[in-house]
Amino acid sequence: MIHPSAIVSPKARLGTQIEVGPFTIIHDDVQIGDGAVIGSHCEIGLPSALAEGAPLVIGDSALIRSHSIFYQGSTFGNRLVTGHRVTVREKTVAGENLQIGTLSDLQGHCTIGNYVRFHSNVHIGQKSSIGNFVWIFPYVVLTNDPHPPSTVLRGPRIEDFAAIATMSMILPGVTVGEGALVGAHSSVNRDVAPNTVVAGAPAKFVCNANEIKLKDGTGRPAYPWRDHFHRGYPEAVVAQWLKEAEARHVSA
Amino acid sequence: MIHPSAIVSPKARLGTQIEVGPFTIIHDDVQIGDGAVIGSHCEIGLPSALAEGAPLVIGDSALIRSHSIFYQGSTFGNRLVTGHRVTVREKTVAGENLQIGTLSDLQGHCTIGNYVRFHSNVHIGQKSSIGNFVWIFPYVVLTNDPHPPSTVLRGPRIEDFAAIATMSMILPGVTVGEGALVGAHSSVNRDVAPNTVVAGAPAKFVCNANEIKLKDGTGRPAYPWRDHFHRGYPEAVVAQWLKEAEARHVSA
Amino acid sequence: MIHPSAIVSPKARLGTQIEVGPFTIIHDDVQIGDGAVIGSHCEIGLPSALAEGAPLVIGDSALIRSHSIFYQGSTFGNRLVTGHRVTVREKTVAGENLQIGTLSDLQGHCTIGNYVRFHSNVHIGQKSSIGNFVWIFPYVVLTNDPHPPSTVLRGPRIEDFAAIATMSMILPGVTVGEGALVGAHSSVNRDVAPNTVVAGAPAKFVCNANEIKLKDGTGRPAYPWRDHFHRGYPEAVVAQWLKEAEARHVSA
Repeated sequence: MIHPSAIVSPKARLGTQIEVGPFTIIHDDVQIGDGAVIGSHCEIGLPSALAEGAPLVIGDSALIRSHSIFYQGSTFGNRLVTGHRVTVREKTVAGENLQIGTLSDLQGHCTIGNYVRFHSNVHIGQKSSIGNFVWIFPYVVLTNDPHPPSTVLRGPRIEDFAAIATMSMILPGVTVGEGALVGAHSSVNRDVAPNTVVAGAPAKFVCNANEIKLKDGTGRPAYPWRDHFHRGYPEAVVAQWLKEAEARHVSA
Repeated sequence: MIHPSAIVSPKARLGTQIEVGPFTIIHDDVQIGDGAVIGSHCEIGLPSALAEGAPLVIGDSALIRSHSIFYQGSTFGNRLVTGHRVTVREKTVAGENLQIGTLSDLQGHCTIGNYVRFHSNVHIGQKSSIGNFVWIFPYVVLTNDPHPPSTVLRGPRIEDFAAIATMSMILPGVTVGEGALVGAHSSVNRDVAPNTVVAGAPAKFVCNANEIKLKDGTGRPAYPWRDHFHRGYPEAVVAQWLKEAEARHVSA
Repeated sequence: MIHPSAIVSPKARLGTQIEVGPFTIIHDDVQIGDGAVIGSHCEIGLPSALAEGAPLVIGDSALIRSHSIFYQGSTFGNRLVTGHRVTVREKTVAGENLQIGTLSDLQGHCTIGNYVRFHSNVHIGQKSSIGNFVWIFPYVVLTNDPHPPSTVLRGPRIEDFAAIATMSMILPGVTVGEGALVGAHSSVNRDVAPNTVVAGAPAKFVCNANEIKLKDGTGRPAYPWRDHFHRGYPEAVVAQWLKEAEARHVSA
């Protein structure tokens, strides 16, 4: 149901069973799949010359919470979920089931894989490249200008399964390797090797990720996190993770 | 007065002399005391299964500024004051005269005492426990997952009269003792003793809090801050503080 | 064009060719020049006793993006540009072509020169004094209370052409000198000499600013940035900068 106070362009191409909350605006160049729920006070498909005519495309089963802003010119797979007051600029290309926390700000011109989770108040600079199953926690900033202000833009690259803890920043052009963990409140100015932990400002090597133990009383390794943390992922994906974990333990 | 563009559920239980601004939504499961002023573009009592049927309960004389979002399932004492664009999730339980600054994000499932002040852009993770007369300054984050992502949740505990300065983070399960000060830009990974100052990343002991002198030309100790800072507290509370301060000076 | 859902006070003094988006509110004590574009869901000229009766004054050709909030009692030169959800409190006095990024929060009682750029999520405490052509990057906080909470307010002073990189904080009363660079993730607790680079927490001297080389393959100095970065500045200003740069190179 579309609330009568919402302003929805007749040119927007909306799927079936869409809900749109009060005082929300949906502009012309918008294409949204079936079953989307869009909260109140949003602005969806904000026109922008920087989108070069591309529409905003959102897959099926999206949940966009109130006061959020999406520009035209980005593309999202199915099951996009956002918190409140997110901002997404032009030319963001994201896979399935991206979650974007409250107040997060995606500056556009970036690529994001499948099943990525941004927690609250994350800032993703332009030219960032983010893999699959990545976690980015509150107040993390991905930067892109080595010597601001300049016209050089070098986005960071965050590989599959990496996790960046709260209030850390990733400096321009840095790669955080697959399965790596950046500790909280770190400033990362050089590449992080896969499956390692770094922390500090500037961030330094702490240990291999699998040396950290979970604080749940089991003494199991905390990383790879996919060995124990499965909330919100598809059953088939989790089954594969468990199979891989078992293979690792057998071979170890 | 309720603005004609506001959408107020007839099921909401509102006190007398309520003001509701334009384009604000008040949902069903809401109970607000007398004399509340609610700004424009808010969403109050957002329905949520996580509230397990509990309403949003707000005491008398609340001031909620524009673009703020409160979920159902939290409880606030009298004289709640918020800035703009605050977000408060389910199962926040707070005492009297809580102040929540612009852009602050309370993730719910936390307890907050009386006369607590959150400045702008504060992030309070779930399971946080906050005493009375606590101060939390801009861009402070209280975290709760020791090894993210995991299912372990260990909220920090902030005791009475503690102050956490700008852009600091408190790591999961840490206790900041009564009257302690966390310096700006710190990362606190172990308990802070009462009435001490810590700073740095990781935060280390700096001195006892009463060794810091106010920069107002008097040379008085800056802490306990309640000896000199009284703005916004009830007269009876301040009178008691002054009596305690005198007793301390006599005995010293 | 003023959208029919907008609520515009007949007392507001608006110039010609103004656009006002849906669900935006313009209050009484507002004066806006010609050609302004104001997005949706804004609140402009919010009444406040702290403004002591002064109106909100905005020059010509302003662009204020959606969900932004301006209190009465501030003054802006021509060509103000904001992102989304900015907050500007009373008694902010700013020159020409100020840019304020998404989510930034100006606490008021501050002065800002010409052609200043605040990126996203910047927090400018009261009593801050900011020169001309200053750059402040995401998640930077300018603080003002040396021993919070107290009644002492000492704003930082940021001089012309200075740049403060992402997630740094400037402590109360600190001066960042002309053309200086504060590196990312720094905490600046003492004055920064003109044309120098500081970094760290607490921030320390790194080098002279002109020793840093641009990462654009040319090997040119990255600072003064005005020697190579000209986007968005008036032609006459840039011509003068280039003339000065040439004079410097000839004399060197």
